[in-house]
Amino acid sequence: MDTLKALFLNCTLKQSPAVSNTEALIRKVCGIMEPMGVECEIVRPVDHKIRFGVLSDEGEGDEWPGILAKIKAADIIVIGSSIWFGVRSSVAQMIIERLDGTYAEGDPDTGQFPLYNKVGGVIVTGNEDGAHDVAANTLFNLSHLGCTIPPNSDSYWVGDAGPGPSYLEAGGERHLYTNKTARYMAHNLVYMARILKAQPIPTNLRALIEEARQESEEGK
Amino acid sequence: MDTLKALFLNCTLKQSPAVSNTEALIRKVCGIMEPMGVECEIVRPVDHKIRFGVLSDEGEGDEWPGILAKIKAADIIVIGSSIWFGVRSSVAQMIIERLDGTYAEGDPDTGQFPLYNKVGGVIVTGNEDGAHDVAANTLFNLSHLGCTIPPNSDSYWVGDAGPGPSYLEAGGERHLYTNKTARYMAHNLVYMARILKAQPIPTNLRALIEEARQESEEGK
Amino acid sequence: MDTLKALFLNCTLKQSPAVSNTEALIRKVCGIMEPMGVECEIVRPVDHKIRFGVLSDEGEGDEWPGILAKIKAADIIVIGSSIWFGVRSSVAQMIIERLDGTYAEGDPDTGQFPLYNKVGGVIVTGNEDGAHDVAANTLFNLSHLGCTIPPNSDSYWVGDAGPGPSYLEAGGERHLYTNKTARYMAHNLVYMARILKAQPIPTNLRALIEEARQESEEGK
Amino acid sequence: MDTLKALFLNCTLKQSPAVSNTEALIRKVCGIMEPMGVECEIVRPVDHKIRFGVLSDEGEGDEWPGILAKIKAADIIVIGSSIWFGVRSSVAQMIIERLDGTYAEGDPDTGQFPLYNKVGGVIVTGNEDGAHDVAANTLFNLSHLGCTIPPNSDSYWVGDAGPGPSYLEAGGERHLYTNKTARYMAHNLVYMARILKAQPIPTNLRALIEEARQESEEGK
Repeated sequence: MDTLKALFLNCTLKQSPAVSNTEALIRKVCGIMEPMGVECEIVRPVDHKIRFGVLSDEGEGDEWPGILAKIKAADIIVIGSSIWFGVRSSVAQMIIERLDGTYAEGDPDTGQFPLYNKVGGVIVTGNEDGAHDVAANTLFNLSHLGCTIPPNSDSYWVGDAGPGPSYLEAGGERHLYTNKTARYMAHNLVYMARILKAQPIPTNLRALIEEARQESEEGK
Repeated sequence: MDTLKALFLNCTLKQSPAVSNTEALIRKVCGIMEPMGVECEIVRPVDHKIRFGVLSDEGEGDEWPGILAKIKAADIIVIGSSIWFGVRSSVAQMIIERLDGTYAEGDPDTGQFPLYNKVGGVIVTGNEDGAHDVAANTLFNLSHLGCTIPPNSDSYWVGDAGPGPSYLEAGGERHLYTNKTARYMAHNLVYMARILKAQPIPTNLRALIEEARQESEEGK
Repeated sequence: MDTLKALFLNCTLKQSPAVSNTEALIRKVCGIMEPMGVECEIVRPVDHKIRFGVLSDEGEGDEWPGILAKIKAADIIVIGSSIWFGVRSSVAQMIIERLDGTYAEGDPDTGQFPLYNKVGGVIVTGNEDGAHDVAANTLFNLSHLGCTIPPNSDSYWVGDAGPGPSYLEAGGERHLYTNKTARYMAHNLVYMARILKAQPIPTNLRALIEEARQESEEGK
Repeated sequence: MDTLKALFLNCTLKQSPAVSNTEALIRKVCGIMEPMGVECEIVRPVDHKIRFGVLSDEGEGDEWPGILAKIKAADIIVIGSSIWFGVRSSVAQMIIERLDGTYAEGDPDTGQFPLYNKVGGVIVTGNEDGAHDVAANTLFNLSHLGCTIPPNSDSYWVGDAGPGPSYLEAGGERHLYTNKTARYMAHNLVYMARILKAQPIPTNLRALIEEARQESEEGK
């Protein structure tokens, strides 16, 4: 079987070498995927100079194009995020905003965006509450950008209500629910990535836009 | 090619025969899917006596089991919802809550939930703002229940800020963006449903739970 | 000091006399408010025949008008909700939808909606994750309907990631964060309710609509 | 009457002097507040070097402390945000994350956080869909940080479904709903800010934590 590439974007707010709880859970998922023939790479965007914006290249000094190249080369894309104030981190939001630029890079024939035929997942840690919101928005955004979302494509750990210890401090690495979903996620992402590699989605977005245009104009 | 079955749950608040804007957009998507060999059925839950709850059968007079049987028989499941106060309708939320019961109906061998190997989509109309929230939560919930979410698996229409005309009154049926996404959605759902019918996801959730349990206990 | 009235709508999915975790936390907040001169009443909407809809009276057999009368008579309105699939319960959503009807009942002089000069709060329990989403949407909806939201106007309990014991089973009644926020909420709601009773918001919405209309038309 | 200070944080992604649609709507609200005796200041965070993080000072070169000083000096705090992928901008999220640091700066006597007795509002523009999500989360976060949220404390403009012209291009400045809510917001924020200046919330958070601690320990 061909090797697959998985790229994990760890959208923690903390620069390396600070310990990241989200990275600990990412590493667990990598550890499950690697024996399945997946080459895993972790990138921590906050270590790079990424400009705020919505283009694929925001000009001088912008390090986003290098990360975007890795995203385009991957079969599996996983966004890792901590939770702040109940939602995804500003770094995760910044990365999603930068991916807006890919809508303008459709395939000349099919119009498919660069993230088509990739699969998407999400990993979340926080000391409490907010994982559903982070996962729902992030997976939905990835699906809009072209990714397929297999079932149970998220894994998260949160503690109980209010401030408290984080994933590593709390011994979250032994939390059954998180260990279970880490496996569901890894297996389903890998299966679906192989499927899409062998049988890519043939939908011709350009042709469909033309059809839609005719329908919209006829009615007028 | 085998015929596929698509079930559309129109979670409007209005009982039949009241005109439903969401149903108008659902019918458009059906009109695209049917020539592709898909048998489409629309169910309006508010026309049925469905009890609040989280079990697959909430007892005497509960009409949910009949609808659930249709869901289990479908290859493609699409939730249609209007937007109220920025989020999905109470009827849509009630349907999602009732699907909680399916987690307890895992396959004896694989543990896969009944919605595994189906694909999920969402259709939203509202006179304004809220479609992203409806779509993100609904698709995420479906993915947790077992559905695969292909790219661009949502179609919505909303007007500009504040109260105003609805989809039909506003001539939304000629709105290019909605007509375009209705097609993207239909084509991607059908393609992915065929794939999953031919090559179902083999993940054995039971075996993975056992692995997770060992990992969780070892660390203790 | 005048007695204040607080109405708690317990939007659990379970009919009485089933034990409700949300009600247990509601009772705790009542126990803090009562010695401060507040008369507390708890209503469980699922015990009543409330029709889906967005009018203040949805016709024959609809028991919403009776509940709406209690809401209008209260100074403090608190929505209690369980969490299902990361968001508020269908019953909570149904109640908010029914409050849409109050926008049409503006004061003849000021145009203020019936919930103006009341204060709003939210109480949430769930076995895990979602309290921020429930609270944010519910408080925002109440503020749109006319309520003022004092600081820390929410109290919630959730357990750690994944299925698990509920508030009562888990001993949530001794959880420090929840006990602390229950007090913050009670004290701030009562203080702000007294302020608004003594010095109601004078804003004349009708006059402002007229101003806005002139601005909008001038520019055309 | 004393002059009030209002601070508007325009969390656009675009650095000055790029035209910001959100700023156009902010200026409209300022234009309503100023004749009411409010001194308005607009800050565009993306023009400053603000580090990702959750402390009030993230060290060398961090320009957040200067902005935080302005926030602390204001009576009215309004977050302006554009919408990206259905939610608030990464810059808005970054600002909210930085405000996390204020929880640690409670008043020595009452424990009240620095944003207590201020009022909060939100202004949103986007070419489509997402304003409710931005407003709900942002106002909820501000209320947690200490702000009071008066009724109708948000004003937004969005266009209809899909990509399209922005606020200024679309002539949004003449949109009645937005012009109306801009006024509601301005009047209610100013009224409530004066109330809180004259009669600040007396709640002693420290004393309540002590009470909660006793309750939590007794039960054990």
